[in-house]
Amino acid sequence: MADAQQIKKVGDIIRADDQRLYIVPSAPGKRSDDDTKITDMLIAFFEAVQRGENADKAFEMIEARFIEIRDALETGTEIETHLDLIKAEVMGGKGLDYAASRGEYLNGILIADYLGFDFIDPAEVIFFDTDGEYEPEKTRTVLRGTLRHTEKAVIPGFYGSMPDGRIKAFSRGGSDITGAIVARAARAEVYENWTDVSGFLVTDPRIVDNPDVIKKITYRELRELSYMGATVLHEDAVFPVFKANIPINIRNTNDPGDGGTMIVPSVDPGESGVITGIAGKKGFTVMSVEKAKMNAELGFGRRVLTALEKNGIRFEHMPSGIDTLGVVLSDSEIEGKEPQLLDDVYNLCQPDSLEVFKGLALVATVGHGMIHNIGVAARLFDALAKAGVNIRMIDQGSSEINIIVGVDEDDFETAIRAIYGAFCS
Amino acid sequence: MADAQQIKKVGDIIRADDQRLYIVPSAPGKRSDDDTKITDMLIAFFEAVQRGENADKAFEMIEARFIEIRDALETGTEIETHLDLIKAEVMGGKGLDYAASRGEYLNGILIADYLGFDFIDPAEVIFFDTDGEYEPEKTRTVLRGTLRHTEKAVIPGFYGSMPDGRIKAFSRGGSDITGAIVARAARAEVYENWTDVSGFLVTDPRIVDNPDVIKKITYRELRELSYMGATVLHEDAVFPVFKANIPINIRNTNDPGDGGTMIVPSVDPGESGVITGIAGKKGFTVMSVEKAKMNAELGFGRRVLTALEKNGIRFEHMPSGIDTLGVVLSDSEIEGKEPQLLDDVYNLCQPDSLEVFKGLALVATVGHGMIHNIGVAARLFDALAKAGVNIRMIDQGSSEINIIVGVDEDDFETAIRAIYGAFCS
Repeated sequence: MADAQQIKKVGDIIRADDQRLYIVPSAPGKRSDDDTKITDMLIAFFEAVQRGENADKAFEMIEARFIEIRDALETGTEIETHLDLIKAEVMGGKGLDYAASRGEYLNGILIADYLGFDFIDPAEVIFFDTDGEYEPEKTRTVLRGTLRHTEKAVIPGFYGSMPDGRIKAFSRGGSDITGAIVARAARAEVYENWTDVSGFLVTDPRIVDNPDVIKKITYRELRELSYMGATVLHEDAVFPVFKANIPINIRNTNDPGDGGTMIVPSVDPGESGVITGIAGKKGFTVMSVEKAKMNAELGFGRRVLTALEKNGIRFEHMPSGIDTLGVVLSDSEIEGKEPQLLDDVYNLCQPDSLEVFKGLALVATVGHGMIHNIGVAARLFDALAKAGVNIRMIDQGSSEINIIVGVDEDDFETAIRAIYGAFCS
Repeated sequence: MADAQQIKKVGDIIRADDQRLYIVPSAPGKRSDDDTKITDMLIAFFEAVQRGENADKAFEMIEARFIEIRDALETGTEIETHLDLIKAEVMGGKGLDYAASRGEYLNGILIADYLGFDFIDPAEVIFFDTDGEYEPEKTRTVLRGTLRHTEKAVIPGFYGSMPDGRIKAFSRGGSDITGAIVARAARAEVYENWTDVSGFLVTDPRIVDNPDVIKKITYRELRELSYMGATVLHEDAVFPVFKANIPINIRNTNDPGDGGTMIVPSVDPGESGVITGIAGKKGFTVMSVEKAKMNAELGFGRRVLTALEKNGIRFEHMPSGIDTLGVVLSDSEIEGKEPQLLDDVYNLCQPDSLEVFKGLALVATVGHGMIHNIGVAARLFDALAKAGVNIRMIDQGSSEINIIVGVDEDDFETAIRAIYGAFCS
């Protein structure tokens, strides 16, 4: 919500359905491509204060943005008082999270006044422990109690408080998390996440021009796709509502008539298309272990994984032949650890050969519609063959909702376009 | 080699190439479907003696067989003396392995006389330790020394001796092992394994009518196929010659003009067809473990495998999605161990869900020609789709010479026929 015009649009959306009870706004964003987000302005102000520089100019820009919004909304909110207090608090030593989260705080106050909703400060209802870890139980209890005494409220996203009262923020993307927490505490029928796109796309628009929007996707599918790099929603935001079986609806404030993407706990067979999404990532390495009769050797696979664990390396996949076992690793996981890892695998497993192949990309094709749907694999591999893509690895687990194909990094985009073409056009 | 006629045929084969220096015969087999193998007759004789029964009748049948062979070969061998000694030794308390291996011993003597070759008793050149474990180093040294003093020799298969002089036999199929040991010690150019089929078939003739013969196959491919149940050769027989890079040629005594199957250390690209063989097995179970964010959890896969190891269970494959991990287990491995295994996986891994699916069959399509051959997977999955086969699992490792597909047991034969049809007809 970059400006007053945007807030008015959101106001229309909220008023269009009186079941929209709790609103979790983020801070005002960019009004144009060369604009600065309020949150970044607040952080710049904080850093100037920390360095002992004169930060008045930096704060004036922030003030100007909020006064402009207030005036356009005609709420008559005493925003200047809030701004003065924030400036004084930051100059008096309040921390980065306090400063960075004031955009949400002030925006929340303005929107509450504009809508005539109650304002709830997350500092009083969302809690972190002394280590800065989010506390779901305490939050749920207190938040649920507070919501019981309000009919309609605005609860800014992104932050809460620690036991000593200090403000603590979620990582970036944290407004989505607050939204999910509120939805769960309120036992909402649906958690609407309004953004500037009409939901999730079947695949990356940088690879496929103008891909279809996913109408309905399960938590499971979303997780599989987001793991592979397709993400519009903060991952942690899915879990609280997932636990409470609340559907999430991704909607577009610029196109409120579009139904967007509905994220649901489960779908009925036949309700979805064959595939739901295609995602992928470059930057994988295969460690290939060969040993005659490894399958007859109790604990062989376990020892390979022990070597990984010893080096603090998580693995992605472990496709196996008869005398071979491949371990697919993210390049970032093995950076600087490769010589020690190979040493450990040698010592623990005594393989006949041990090789490392770089430059693997993984492409995941995901969809509940693939279950028991004969011919999905044929269509997929036919498309890849016609596109001239050499297949280096295939992994389809027992879940059947995901086929993961390993290809050369050079073939990555070609592979995704080919699969999209086979199923979605 | 069931009778003299068969031995004469083998004699012609041996004399056709004067590079055929060392001959490793098995015992005389069945002359017809309702006949009894000499080895089984010898075991029956041994058991009768052990039970204290009159075993003369049992031994007379054995004597008759050998005398008949000797007379037909017209070698003039004093086979009666050997037979009398064997009878006396077994009645005097010699063990089962001694008795069971006398078929090879006597056949070897007859064939050596028939060919005019030296006879080498494996008791003097093939060794086992006091625990009955085969001793490759000692055997190689002694056998090599003995072969140096003979130009052409017959060395019966199947047995050797322990340090105290007792006869010790390999497990059934052991003549192949002796052949491989002799080939390695002799640094042979080729180990010809003459049998009653013209080499390995691309797939199981009980499933596909009259399948093609494999002309050339690598050790690796053979191992992958034999692991999956396709086997004409004792598995241990491959390893000694594999270590020495000696090719194995499977030939047919009933069709000596046929080149049979050549088993080689490696093939040049383009030299082989796309696929070499198709094999498979029923009787697998998938244990499906689901846990949100398992990939982010260091050691998750290792803990699953630790649970298996704790129960003494070897696994076949471990295909994985994002939040799921399937472990493919042979039914025979988990028999009676399932409840304890599931308990251990629960305790070690705390999964969100844990399910067991029975009735999986695995089909392995193997071939060096698949490497970098675009479209192999497409052809394979297209064939399965057209045959109406639902795919439950796919696993192609980094080796690229093997695609393993999991299907319902009911679809097993259909799947093999479909793949054969796609690549071999």
